[in-house]
Amino acid sequence: MQVAALRHRSESEDCFVLDRNRVRVRFHTAKNDVEKIIVHYVDNYMPPLSAKQVEMEKIGSGEVEDHWGATLEVPYHRIKYTFEVTGKDGDRKIFGDRGIYDYSKKSLLADGSYFRVPYLHEIDMDKTPDWVKHTVWYQIFPERFANGDKSNDPKGTKPWNPDDHPGREDFYGGDLQGVLDHLDYLQKLGVNGLYFCPIFKASSNHKYDAVDYFEIDPAFGDKDLFAKVVNEAHKRGMKVMLDAVFNHIGKDSMQWQDVVENGAKSRFADWFHINSFPVEPYRNPAKGEGQPPYETFAFEPTMPKLNTANPEVQDYLLEIATYWVKYFDVDAWRLDVANEVDHHFWKRFHQALVAIKPDFYIVGEIWHSARPWLNGDEFSGVMNYPFTLQVEDHFFHHAMSAKAMVEHLNDQMMLYRDSTNQAMLNTLDSHDTARIRTVANGDEDLALQAMAFIFTQTGSPCIYYGDEMGMEGGNDPDSRKPMNWSKEDSPIWKRVHALVEMRLKHAQTFGKGKVLLSVTEDGLIKVDRTGEEHIIAYFNTTDHDIRLAADNELLKQNYDGGKLAPKGFIVIKA
Amino acid sequence: MQVAALRHRSESEDCFVLDRNRVRVRFHTAKNDVEKIIVHYVDNYMPPLSAKQVEMEKIGSGEVEDHWGATLEVPYHRIKYTFEVTGKDGDRKIFGDRGIYDYSKKSLLADGSYFRVPYLHEIDMDKTPDWVKHTVWYQIFPERFANGDKSNDPKGTKPWNPDDHPGREDFYGGDLQGVLDHLDYLQKLGVNGLYFCPIFKASSNHKYDAVDYFEIDPAFGDKDLFAKVVNEAHKRGMKVMLDAVFNHIGKDSMQWQDVVENGAKSRFADWFHINSFPVEPYRNPAKGEGQPPYETFAFEPTMPKLNTANPEVQDYLLEIATYWVKYFDVDAWRLDVANEVDHHFWKRFHQALVAIKPDFYIVGEIWHSARPWLNGDEFSGVMNYPFTLQVEDHFFHHAMSAKAMVEHLNDQMMLYRDSTNQAMLNTLDSHDTARIRTVANGDEDLALQAMAFIFTQTGSPCIYYGDEMGMEGGNDPDSRKPMNWSKEDSPIWKRVHALVEMRLKHAQTFGKGKVLLSVTEDGLIKVDRTGEEHIIAYFNTTDHDIRLAADNELLKQNYDGGKLAPKGFIVIKA
Repeated sequence: MQVAALRHRSESEDCFVLDRNRVRVRFHTAKNDVEKIIVHYVDNYMPPLSAKQVEMEKIGSGEVEDHWGATLEVPYHRIKYTFEVTGKDGDRKIFGDRGIYDYSKKSLLADGSYFRVPYLHEIDMDKTPDWVKHTVWYQIFPERFANGDKSNDPKGTKPWNPDDHPGREDFYGGDLQGVLDHLDYLQKLGVNGLYFCPIFKASSNHKYDAVDYFEIDPAFGDKDLFAKVVNEAHKRGMKVMLDAVFNHIGKDSMQWQDVVENGAKSRFADWFHINSFPVEPYRNPAKGEGQPPYETFAFEPTMPKLNTANPEVQDYLLEIATYWVKYFDVDAWRLDVANEVDHHFWKRFHQALVAIKPDFYIVGEIWHSARPWLNGDEFSGVMNYPFTLQVEDHFFHHAMSAKAMVEHLNDQMMLYRDSTNQAMLNTLDSHDTARIRTVANGDEDLALQAMAFIFTQTGSPCIYYGDEMGMEGGNDPDSRKPMNWSKEDSPIWKRVHALVEMRLKHAQTFGKGKVLLSVTEDGLIKVDRTGEEHIIAYFNTTDHDIRLAADNELLKQNYDGGKLAPKGFIVIKA
Repeated sequence: MQVAALRHRSESEDCFVLDRNRVRVRFHTAKNDVEKIIVHYVDNYMPPLSAKQVEMEKIGSGEVEDHWGATLEVPYHRIKYTFEVTGKDGDRKIFGDRGIYDYSKKSLLADGSYFRVPYLHEIDMDKTPDWVKHTVWYQIFPERFANGDKSNDPKGTKPWNPDDHPGREDFYGGDLQGVLDHLDYLQKLGVNGLYFCPIFKASSNHKYDAVDYFEIDPAFGDKDLFAKVVNEAHKRGMKVMLDAVFNHIGKDSMQWQDVVENGAKSRFADWFHINSFPVEPYRNPAKGEGQPPYETFAFEPTMPKLNTANPEVQDYLLEIATYWVKYFDVDAWRLDVANEVDHHFWKRFHQALVAIKPDFYIVGEIWHSARPWLNGDEFSGVMNYPFTLQVEDHFFHHAMSAKAMVEHLNDQMMLYRDSTNQAMLNTLDSHDTARIRTVANGDEDLALQAMAFIFTQTGSPCIYYGDEMGMEGGNDPDSRKPMNWSKEDSPIWKRVHALVEMRLKHAQTFGKGKVLLSVTEDGLIKVDRTGEEHIIAYFNTTDHDIRLAADNELLKQNYDGGKLAPKGFIVIKA
């Protein structure tokens, strides 16, 4: 047995509280190396002699590891537990808190063999909002979704042409009235979460350069209109998520301009990370110009980084964050460049928001593995790029085999607690990337197949506006074309609609059920979900038909006469 | 190469910030399996092509793993890094954030290969108080240290006889005046930290059953006297640590008595975890009596568990915690049963105390591995039992070879960040255990050898009152005999004194220097410390003399004529 590969971390994603009476544990071993794992567990204040036993089940096979899981019943809110691991070679070890021991009754009874859950505190549990697990998001880039009010169009607004290739500085007149006008449309499509790119006062078309977070951009509308959008969305059972950048501020902001003008004497000098005065001209280390006078996002002089360790800055940002929740009833924040802001601030942020809405949803933009932010006291989830990028690598780019993708996805799911995985935001495209249909080289079947795969996974799926219309578009700004309203009820629209409907009709199973990913002997990707129902989905990502007997189908594509064709999938109720 | 055994966890004890310009990374591999590890690292916003390289050094060999470390220079407060691992078999891998890849230029340039430190925030650093690293603690059990005031002796106080075997209920009259009278003595011994067992108003001799945390126990003195003790200690350069239990409260407390009397209507009903009313009689699940009516410490009906999720309870406990710091200038809290209180509360606790004293020291009583409490926002350190128990297992019980002990200690040190290891409280005995000399079967040399070993380790050493007098005593209450004042300046006293002096004279190196533990070919335990100085210590725990050429000695025992005898040690300046 590869003893050095045995892995378990107490009080982490490897040991977490499900509720006051159940703890979930995970264990990791070298691939195909271990035969059996038994967890011995008992109340901390009862003798190890009275320990119960449960055999772990294999919950996934990763790139180089097998992953195992078990649920432990905890009648008195405390537990100690240890692992008895039997290798395929017959070797038997006790893996405990103070090391690894050869199996013996003595080592099973030794105190040092046991990991501890000292007490199950509800306040420390990683709770993520339940509604997210029953949500399909729809991402709206407001300047390009619909123009409902011509009177607020910016000067030089171009005609609404879905075939245009928008330039970086173009305006098309999309606004909140346009969203309001199409809430019935969105309800018909079936989505129940609206994720808005920034709507705050800013000069650009994308509004990521906010000048005032307390104002709606006048080209989008005003606060009365926004309040109406939220109310009408809520009436339709839809949640509303806004987008904010708290890492840095625009150089035109009142605060930064004061620093430029008054240097060290500015009352905002401590709002930033300043290395030397005067702050201009900026010296760019990436260009070999030496130490920069102040910290920025990347090495971008127009985006001075905010000093979130300063309580004044914290209060200012928290006022913004809570304002839109308290007075407009917003349900979620999506946070730009979330990883570069300090944890201390995000903990205050989390506390302030759940104090107003206990089931508030917070999702961070983090492109890498994000454990430190996902322990229940900062974010509910993150934009799940490490997960979706592997899906794209396989489905679109063929840069990874089905087996490799499944292994990587299994590994990815081991990074976080179950409730965190369920609250991830799974997007295949967005305003920052090319559209999936374009990534799929215009192939609708392929785009839909990848989308269907994401819809069968744990984590909240998100549709980028217009994908349901079969819109195409390369990297931004090309992916930000004006919405093509002519394709409602078209074949692709109906397929996306059917996908949304299926996900939400079986939301409990897709959102919170167990998941087992594997590749069949024939080469099909198999997604096995067990919750209130048992649902299985198969995807053919090979270049040939594969025989598959299936009935009780919930949805299918390219499945006919007992064969699943390339780019096909079938979802069945087992 | 055992690829499944490669291990690194971003933003954890495997990747932590040393200061605004340096990050420390660790990596773990199967023992004797890997030849070389190179870290490639570069600013997050600079191209991987410009990455720097640093080779990791082996920092310790554990039970089944080798541990590696490297320090990365971070000029612009952000960094991405990846590991190039070469096995002894010649196999070469890239170990990155999204998986493991065969080594290639392409995989070195792939974004998914890189782990991230998105931004080095000072506010998120795991800072532990620097003074602790220059402290030798002295633990005082106040009822047994010295009787300075006969007028406050409890009724039935027994004569001060160091040869007595105290009973559970006995009183000997020790008090704070006794401590005050002996501060000069403690200064002469050389210790510079006083760790008091509880001094608050309580009925028992050990005072762990506090009735009122805002009062000094009248048999110990009063607040004026305690203030004097702290001031006089501070004048002598000594820090003062108090002991508290915030997990539960005594059944005689006003709060619990109100619940017993008024049941669900009590205004303190939410202060506890109550399953059913009435709360009496108690049903003990450990005796098979079913679900207990309320939660307790262990299954002890007289110690109802406090509901620290209740803000009223939090405020009450924080008032206690801050009162003694604000008004009496106490420097540290030692927290009883610290693991059973929720993290949420400890974060508030930490914040409240560092707001008063930025270098406040918080040490939790936790017997198992304690990572979740030691990320810089709860405790500075814990009572380091998993470390000291392995030392005892080898030195006293011969239950573990020197090699196995060194391996286990190396593994233990990988559980925490360096600054955390430096703030651990390392005790070989206490009021809860037998005295070391007794554990050593009365063998002074052996007791002193183990003590010397602890004094050369990272972590703050602690002397239990009277150990310097060579006192003996079995498990409590036998280890709580009245202090033997007759042995001042005796040979053992001088040896302990010399140990304290050596540790503090070279505090920077012992407290904060690097440590390498190994076993020499001859079987000596070698402790190699590098800080401002380079100090090496050898311990002979075998049963025969071992040749060792050494000069520049700082301290020695059983070393003579180039030979280190059993139970001997020598500390030299290299």
